[in-house]
Amino acid sequence: MDLQKSPLAPNAFPNMPEVSGVRFATAEAGVKYKGRTDLMLAEFAPQTTVAGVFTQSKTASAPVLKCREHLPGGVARALVVNSGNSNAFTGKRGWESVDHILNAVAATLGCREQDVFSASTGVIGEPLPHDLITGAMPGLKENLGGATWLHVADAIMTTDTYPKGATRTAVIGDVTVTLNGIVKGSGMIAPDMATMLGFMFTDATISADVLQDLLSPAAETSFNCITVDSDTSTSDTVMLFATGQAGNAQPSGADDPMLADFKRALAELSLDLAHQVVRDGEGASKFIAITVTGAEDDGAAKRIGLAIANSPLVKTAIAGEDANWGRIVMAVGKAGEAADRDKLGIRVGGVQLSQDGMRVEDYDETPVTAHMKGQNIAIEVDVGIASGQATVWTCDLTHGYISINADYRS
Amino acid sequence: MDLQKSPLAPNAFPNMPEVSGVRFATAEAGVKYKGRTDLMLAEFAPQTTVAGVFTQSKTASAPVLKCREHLPGGVARALVVNSGNSNAFTGKRGWESVDHILNAVAATLGCREQDVFSASTGVIGEPLPHDLITGAMPGLKENLGGATWLHVADAIMTTDTYPKGATRTAVIGDVTVTLNGIVKGSGMIAPDMATMLGFMFTDATISADVLQDLLSPAAETSFNCITVDSDTSTSDTVMLFATGQAGNAQPSGADDPMLADFKRALAELSLDLAHQVVRDGEGASKFIAITVTGAEDDGAAKRIGLAIANSPLVKTAIAGEDANWGRIVMAVGKAGEAADRDKLGIRVGGVQLSQDGMRVEDYDETPVTAHMKGQNIAIEVDVGIASGQATVWTCDLTHGYISINADYRS
Repeated sequence: MDLQKSPLAPNAFPNMPEVSGVRFATAEAGVKYKGRTDLMLAEFAPQTTVAGVFTQSKTASAPVLKCREHLPGGVARALVVNSGNSNAFTGKRGWESVDHILNAVAATLGCREQDVFSASTGVIGEPLPHDLITGAMPGLKENLGGATWLHVADAIMTTDTYPKGATRTAVIGDVTVTLNGIVKGSGMIAPDMATMLGFMFTDATISADVLQDLLSPAAETSFNCITVDSDTSTSDTVMLFATGQAGNAQPSGADDPMLADFKRALAELSLDLAHQVVRDGEGASKFIAITVTGAEDDGAAKRIGLAIANSPLVKTAIAGEDANWGRIVMAVGKAGEAADRDKLGIRVGGVQLSQDGMRVEDYDETPVTAHMKGQNIAIEVDVGIASGQATVWTCDLTHGYISINADYRS
Repeated sequence: MDLQKSPLAPNAFPNMPEVSGVRFATAEAGVKYKGRTDLMLAEFAPQTTVAGVFTQSKTASAPVLKCREHLPGGVARALVVNSGNSNAFTGKRGWESVDHILNAVAATLGCREQDVFSASTGVIGEPLPHDLITGAMPGLKENLGGATWLHVADAIMTTDTYPKGATRTAVIGDVTVTLNGIVKGSGMIAPDMATMLGFMFTDATISADVLQDLLSPAAETSFNCITVDSDTSTSDTVMLFATGQAGNAQPSGADDPMLADFKRALAELSLDLAHQVVRDGEGASKFIAITVTGAEDDGAAKRIGLAIANSPLVKTAIAGEDANWGRIVMAVGKAGEAADRDKLGIRVGGVQLSQDGMRVEDYDETPVTAHMKGQNIAIEVDVGIASGQATVWTCDLTHGYISINADYRS
């Protein structure tokens, strides 16, 4: 299946600087795809710390469970990621495959197995031909340092139509640190998390505990606020690695004031990457931001936002460039959160469509119709109950989604 | 928009006998549609009892709230239903419209307003032109008795591609009673309930309290076990009217043994009508039954079943005639209910695809591929935890759904 690049894609892959302490290599292991890379290896400097957030699926894949097992160690020396096969729902054989792979990486790089992390993405339920991956190790080792950020972002794609990367800098004390990230994902995207693999790297010196305390809230308002199709993957993984090469002073905790700018940069990086996933949503033609205010609390606002974002009727209406706010009301109603029908207000493209539970008297459809024809759609819902608020992002539901998912076994 | 009749439609509208104590009339009120009926009035014999179940939406429509208000009275003398406009999210004006309509019906039939029930279905958020409905009352009164079941089923349709009715008989004591039902709905269908209006009528003598105790569980395993697109309407209504004309002895309660056969007939009627809604699911090409066994309890089984039934990735795979059981695993995982990945078993069309968390060794795709090409798809999931079970029904997600909902403001 030949997928056309999403119309919502950024103009170009960003120019990303090096992150000292990380070296990459990629390979064509031939797990499933032909004529493209499908395997990446990252080697980290000693003392690199790690944090991670993973799928909430009750049928999580073996690689996810193994990452969770290794995470409390707080140290990462390597990351290995393959595309084409997710090694999910592969029973005992799945565990064995992960063990073979981690073992091969540890042997190749001369590190401890518990300091190796892995992720797999692609078809579920097919045994992973791990020999193809372990067999690629010598070649990967030789090429370490030869792969760019773009190469790595390319290697982890599945139904993605473009590689996804982002970069930021931040100041910790008087030291400027770099934060880079790559991500893949375009379908089976819903919190928590998405069929999304996201890997972020910084040269900052930050302990593993603090790193986790920084990553979790950053993911909560970015990667966990996006949805393409409400489907939650068995493999979702977002990890943050800190190589400690920048020479900043060690922060004492996540609340340390010296981390303020780093938090800002990490939030921006996470949101940039998360938005890129939505912009590559299968079949997407519109990027939709849904802001809910006036809910009982922030959690309620997020759940209402996701009910709107996941509603097939809302998403198809937007695909049809129809500001069908009746469907938005319906979605608010089905969220199950406190709402007062007669206090609800809805704005589309900044224009008030309804207020106090009914259409505004002098509603002029013209500017809204113009807004709906654009690529970026803004929906604002005020529930009118209290002060909880949240923003979530999604894309529309088009014929393209059906074509990709009805005709293609990913 | 010209909708083609669903390929899953029954061959013909059933031959439905009269239910003594109910008289119908229909009219072309012109609320929205032209050249078709869009209004029905039912007049009930005195002492007719009534039960109802309604949407769980937090933004329920004015007609629903008014029905809930009238239900405790237990008596119904009339039912009035319009299509084309749901009078939902119409603020104070919505309440006024309902009042005008109920008042006109009561005046026309010479009954109390609190014994009149109404339902509206169609576009949300547009003021209902209730004058068109009240103005049709004299004509409706004159025609009472002139409309058949088919006429009534036709008048309440919106995006339905065929009228939906069903009939059963049951024995109470030594008296044979009739149960008839009509239903409309094809999108915005999810428990609890669907954009579904369902009305059932029996000539049995059953008190309102007992009738409610019979309807609630019957709806729970039928109307509340179907989903087309996970979207819950603001207007969902299922009501059961008992005219008391058959002359059976009054049952003492829902547990009265004399009601055993009536319960069987009501369950069958409800399921028949619910299935007809799924078979008219917007764009549907496959009717899908999902049976979950081995869950923690029956509620967990139903939630897992609905997670599968609402998964866009599962529904598009079935549209593509692909037995993509990896997506079924994903959906089980996202349901949030207890599941053991390595105990899960999946059958499609009666063929075991996976067991103990992995693909069966000697899996032969041939019979499964043949099954997937048919119109009726059977998915069985055994969670392997305990003994909870449930069956839910849905349809596939096709280009037709997108066409209907992206290009059409219903």
